[in-house]
Amino acid sequence: MPRPAPHRLDPASYPHRETIQTRFQDLDVLGHINNVAMAGLFESGRVRFNRAMNLTGWSGHRWLVAKLEINYLGEGFFPDDVEIASGIGEIGKRSWSILAAAFQKGECIATADVVLVMSASGGLTELPPEFRAGLEAHRIRA
Amino acid sequence: MPRPAPHRLDPASYPHRETIQTRFQDLDVLGHINNVAMAGLFESGRVRFNRAMNLTGWSGHRWLVAKLEINYLGEGFFPDDVEIASGIGEIGKRSWSILAAAFQKGECIATADVVLVMSASGGLTELPPEFRAGLEAHRIRA
Amino acid sequence: MPRPAPHRLDPASYPHRETIQTRFQDLDVLGHINNVAMAGLFESGRVRFNRAMNLTGWSGHRWLVAKLEINYLGEGFFPDDVEIASGIGEIGKRSWSILAAAFQKGECIATADVVLVMSASGGLTELPPEFRAGLEAHRIRA
Amino acid sequence: MPRPAPHRLDPASYPHRETIQTRFQDLDVLGHINNVAMAGLFESGRVRFNRAMNLTGWSGHRWLVAKLEINYLGEGFFPDDVEIASGIGEIGKRSWSILAAAFQKGECIATADVVLVMSASGGLTELPPEFRAGLEAHRIRA
Repeated sequence: MPRPAPHRLDPASYPHRETIQTRFQDLDVLGHINNVAMAGLFESGRVRFNRAMNLTGWSGHRWLVAKLEINYLGEGFFPDDVEIASGIGEIGKRSWSILAAAFQKGECIATADVVLVMSASGGLTELPPEFRAGLEAHRIRA
Repeated sequence: MPRPAPHRLDPASYPHRETIQTRFQDLDVLGHINNVAMAGLFESGRVRFNRAMNLTGWSGHRWLVAKLEINYLGEGFFPDDVEIASGIGEIGKRSWSILAAAFQKGECIATADVVLVMSASGGLTELPPEFRAGLEAHRIRA
Repeated sequence: MPRPAPHRLDPASYPHRETIQTRFQDLDVLGHINNVAMAGLFESGRVRFNRAMNLTGWSGHRWLVAKLEINYLGEGFFPDDVEIASGIGEIGKRSWSILAAAFQKGECIATADVVLVMSASGGLTELPPEFRAGLEAHRIRA
Repeated sequence: MPRPAPHRLDPASYPHRETIQTRFQDLDVLGHINNVAMAGLFESGRVRFNRAMNLTGWSGHRWLVAKLEINYLGEGFFPDDVEIASGIGEIGKRSWSILAAAFQKGECIATADVVLVMSASGGLTELPPEFRAGLEAHRIRA
């Protein structure tokens, strides 16, 4: 089972960071943060990262998640906060990726790779140039 | 962006099937099933598949999700049910994978690949022979 | 602590019934259906009841939940289904209530009383006559 | 429809306060915090309040939610935080209540009244004296 590359576990690789609260609801019967709840924590960090990037040029288009990959590296617990570090990975013609890592008490407990696509009324659409430029400015450092 | 292999989109490839209800809670502001909610639907199908396999030989051990990969192929909606088809993929020394696909109105809307590991008090542990045999009996047909 | 009236625990009092699946996600660390998850199960039953009533006359208006009261009478478990029985309670000038009860293995595990209001662009609005008539047709039997 | 008493809308009435983050997951198709999600936000505030009270004397007993009542007074939104103010209400022989209010941008958007009971192996049990004393020290000011 291949593990994430070492730079993915280093908070310094990521241009953006958010402190996300855990909730009692995130726990499952094993007493740790459930794997689906972890996907929700990453979503919280990602939506806040998107707002912070304040990307322009996509008016009238929707963003859709095309792929989600999470590697679970350690157990997460409540009530400690989770730090979600995020940055932009690959930028394609019609898609881009957001790479993130979650830290609790300084330990990386999971990484997440999300591929997003831009959808217009006629289907998937190319990323507008201003939008690409905005993404370029927030790349992860490998 | 590589797509899942064709056999992954065919319900006939999977030895097990569950009908899972959608909930109003699964919808997000875009009016479709949220990507995290989709992970929850797959979890529902997976837990029921695990119960149906009725695997033995792992008493005293826990199963942990080590990796989750979801490919979103189409939008899902409420209130239609989702069919979750599941089967066993790779079986390693200490890990195994559950491969699944979600269908709504006959269309494959997502696939999920989950890698699980078995954990004992001293850390990860090898899969017991009876347990492996149980997994072998529920393999996906490629 | 006052308990719900006896007729509230009797499935025969309610004009509508839905079978709602439980999910692994509904469980909390105590291994039973979490109280917030129970609110979600009731919401699932209620939304399906609303669709079944097929009420008319409220075009351009939104429904908002003004009050929710749940009495928890017994523990709920996964993976058994929950039966949600629903009916209309009080009908006011601007509000109405949906009364429901949840049964698992024949035992009433919770009741829910929800007050809804109708909201138009200028604030709360009176219930249109056709809408009231639709509600009247689905009253709970006391 | 009776509204909560005025002191319930005043943060100064409550001995404890928690800042709870909202999540994208809390939103429903109407674009506001869903009523069930609001129950989850109150649960988050309540669990943190319980930890802060650090009550003693209930070893070997479980707490169960017997009743939940939420009054929704205004719409809540993402990504602003919600302030959850909490205090103890009535203290009975076998039950007690936690009263809370949620504020967003200074406005009270909801109140929650939760009745809890203490359960031992033989069923509900009386509140131990030390436990009662701990509750008394955190009463809401009417």
